Amino acid sequence: MNPLALEQNEKIISVNPVVYEMLSELGKRIYFPSKGILSQSAEAKKLAKKFNASIGTALESGKAMYLNSVMDSISGVSPNDALLYAPSQGTLELRELWRKKNLHDNPDLDGVACSLPVVTNGLSGALSVAADLFVNPGDTVLLPDMNWDNYLLNFEDRCGANLQYFNFFAGDGLDLDAFRDALAVQPVGGKVLVILNFPNNPTGYTATETEGTAMAQALLETAERGVNVIALVDDAYYGLFFTPEAMKQSIFCKLAGKHPRLMAVKADAATKEVYVWGLRIGFLTFSVGGAGENSPLYAALETKASGLIRSTISNACALSQKIISNALSNPEFYAQRAEKVDLMGRRAGKVREVLDSHAEYAQHFVAYPFNSGYFMCLKLKTVNSEALRKQLLTQYGVGTISITATNLRIAFSCLEEGEIEELFALIYKACCDLTPA
Amino acid sequence: MNPLALEQNEKIISVNPVVYEMLSELGKRIYFPSKGILSQSAEAKKLAKKFNASIGTALESGKAMYLNSVMDSISGVSPNDALLYAPSQGTLELRELWRKKNLHDNPDLDGVACSLPVVTNGLSGALSVAADLFVNPGDTVLLPDMNWDNYLLNFEDRCGANLQYFNFFAGDGLDLDAFRDALAVQPVGGKVLVILNFPNNPTGYTATETEGTAMAQALLETAERGVNVIALVDDAYYGLFFTPEAMKQSIFCKLAGKHPRLMAVKADAATKEVYVWGLRIGFLTFSVGGAGENSPLYAALETKASGLIRSTISNACALSQKIISNALSNPEFYAQRAEKVDLMGRRAGKVREVLDSHAEYAQHFVAYPFNSGYFMCLKLKTVNSEALRKQLLTQYGVGTISITATNLRIAFSCLEEGEIEELFALIYKACCDLTPA
Repeated sequence: MNPLALEQNEKIISVNPVVYEMLSELGKRIYFPSKGILSQSAEAKKLAKKFNASIGTALESGKAMYLNSVMDSISGVSPNDALLYAPSQGTLELRELWRKKNLHDNPDLDGVACSLPVVTNGLSGALSVAADLFVNPGDTVLLPDMNWDNYLLNFEDRCGANLQYFNFFAGDGLDLDAFRDALAVQPVGGKVLVILNFPNNPTGYTATETEGTAMAQALLETAERGVNVIALVDDAYYGLFFTPEAMKQSIFCKLAGKHPRLMAVKADAATKEVYVWGLRIGFLTFSVGGAGENSPLYAALETKASGLIRSTISNACALSQKIISNALSNPEFYAQRAEKVDLMGRRAGKVREVLDSHAEYAQHFVAYPFNSGYFMCLKLKTVNSEALRKQLLTQYGVGTISITATNLRIAFSCLEEGEIEELFALIYKACCDLTPA
Repeated sequence: MNPLALEQNEKIISVNPVVYEMLSELGKRIYFPSKGILSQSAEAKKLAKKFNASIGTALESGKAMYLNSVMDSISGVSPNDALLYAPSQGTLELRELWRKKNLHDNPDLDGVACSLPVVTNGLSGALSVAADLFVNPGDTVLLPDMNWDNYLLNFEDRCGANLQYFNFFAGDGLDLDAFRDALAVQPVGGKVLVILNFPNNPTGYTATETEGTAMAQALLETAERGVNVIALVDDAYYGLFFTPEAMKQSIFCKLAGKHPRLMAVKADAATKEVYVWGLRIGFLTFSVGGAGENSPLYAALETKASGLIRSTISNACALSQKIISNALSNPEFYAQRAEKVDLMGRRAGKVREVLDSHAEYAQHFVAYPFNSGYFMCLKLKTVNSEALRKQLLTQYGVGTISITATNLRIAFSCLEEGEIEELFALIYKACCDLTPA
């Protein structure tokens, strides 16, 4: 093993040896090449006041060399900020701004020791770095049976994890018994990575405060029982909460720093929180019991995450990082964001209103609980969802997503409020088409 | 194995079963989730003329929802082009423009069957996708002993490959015997991934036409002998050629489509070719004997590469892709690029001139061959390179990179022509400081 990896591993072990046990083999051996070109360049950046011949970019008059045909498409960001490399862990400016945003949104994190967010290529980048850090082939990953299909591709197909599903809904809320049962069978001395995703894709459901507390409690009890628990919180749709019941702070707050055997990992992203899908900026933040503020354990995990980023993509887009830093620094940011959340909430409210005012729809479909996010799911009673999707598409020019044979996903995020009533009328009509009277 | 993976594997086997043998276990099982949300969304995009409730982004009046605090930093690119997701394989616009650029630069590729370039997160992204596709733990990766340190992190530390090094230089050129010897020991029935990097980092050396032909011939003979050869061409610094001798077309041209047992993989990037380091756009192009234009084998490899991208980062920055597409479409692009290559070439020429005109330098250091790229390397005769680097930095404010105990890398890419004479005078002075008379 590389001495730089050993050095980081020793830091982790000295603070909390359980975290070292949690790491995958790759997580154990990965390191950031801090003794090589990158550290020498960093040193030169500080000290080479006369000539700096250490830089792996092209400069002109001390600034980034650029083609006019490139800078024509960029404004308000200098060539240096737009075009030079960002560090593998992300720019310090953005990492600190994102932490500030997370503290603003999640006041319960105040005083809770966490790593600084590491910048990844979107939410997917955060998930794949987390997977590489913690998941060996055969390791158990526990997730709801209603979930984003990229979990399968990342954890099972790419990493070879053993995926176990728990039933998501029971009645009007979460199936907490199923969640507890799925945790209860995890063997003492073993390891489980649990994916928690609120607002949930595809259902648009966020746990209530009571449900969130119960889930956190179940995870804590599992850790207390002697299972190494990695709680991977996928906050992709964070902030899009539309009812008083939906929990307003990330479930990460209920897990961070709670137990030495409970590693809370927050994967979040500017992608949906800042409405910048294609800019590909996500974040990974760690918190575990037994590691205080500025703990070397967090530095080591940040270093290992950076090493994984370096080895796979080197770094995330610098221009995107600057654009998002600019947005987060803008005094209008929170007001602008609130306006969009409000708009999305009106769409969700309209969906609810339409469903409530058409009792006849229940003959063919009902809604799964939804209170947040981009989506809601219909539970179909009479027709196959793929058949319905095809009928809607070919006969009515309506696009929906068939998730399972009985579940159809509707994205209200991309619909105008005024379109929603007719959309559901067409879904009902298509169901009638497919069920001979 | 997922049926979608089997489907792609069958396509590959039907065209060239050797390529299937070349794939890693991950390469064999990876697939693009084309039957799920992504394909349904694509179908809806075409057919959902009335309402499209399949989209996982937020729209307003049919366009990307955005915050003014974000779009303030972007000009000349619409919110849709800047902010919506690009496909995992990259935008078709950019992929076709990059292919066109590669054909413009490499006329020998005209009529040679290749895949369409797949867009990756920079050159590193191209290397890591190639590694995931082709390298199992323990597989042999052959590379020059003078190389970029991220190869080690990606192939050995991340993927567990067995790295074998060949001596790079002999006299004024490449050590072709070392290269041939390293290939000769590869066992029949085995597999070797060979990294070819011209202009080379850290030496700034590009093979001559004769050397390039000899290397390609050695690889071809290895394939003919029954070794599965994956020739991974790292063209990061492509185009920065400063002498008549340096080969002007990528060595990929001499390998593409040459033998069914020789997979040529071209990893290249806008990063340095378009002077956009931080925008993180690279490409991966495949070519192998036995697969014609538009072969299903290429479609399958593109699909698998896209699946790896989907599972790790979902997609590369859309704004970056648009900016680079705009640049490549600009009629001034080639002229603007040539101007910068010329500027860099004058710097390289100045380095050569300074070294040639100071015979006394040879007491302490000589240059390794260089004719291209960003860098040149000094071979130190009297002092340790780390000691010299420290002396230069602390006593003279000069930043350089210590590559090995005897090799010091100088990046002329970031120096003005007028600084070069004094830089080398200071290096000489620092050497004298460290060697008592």
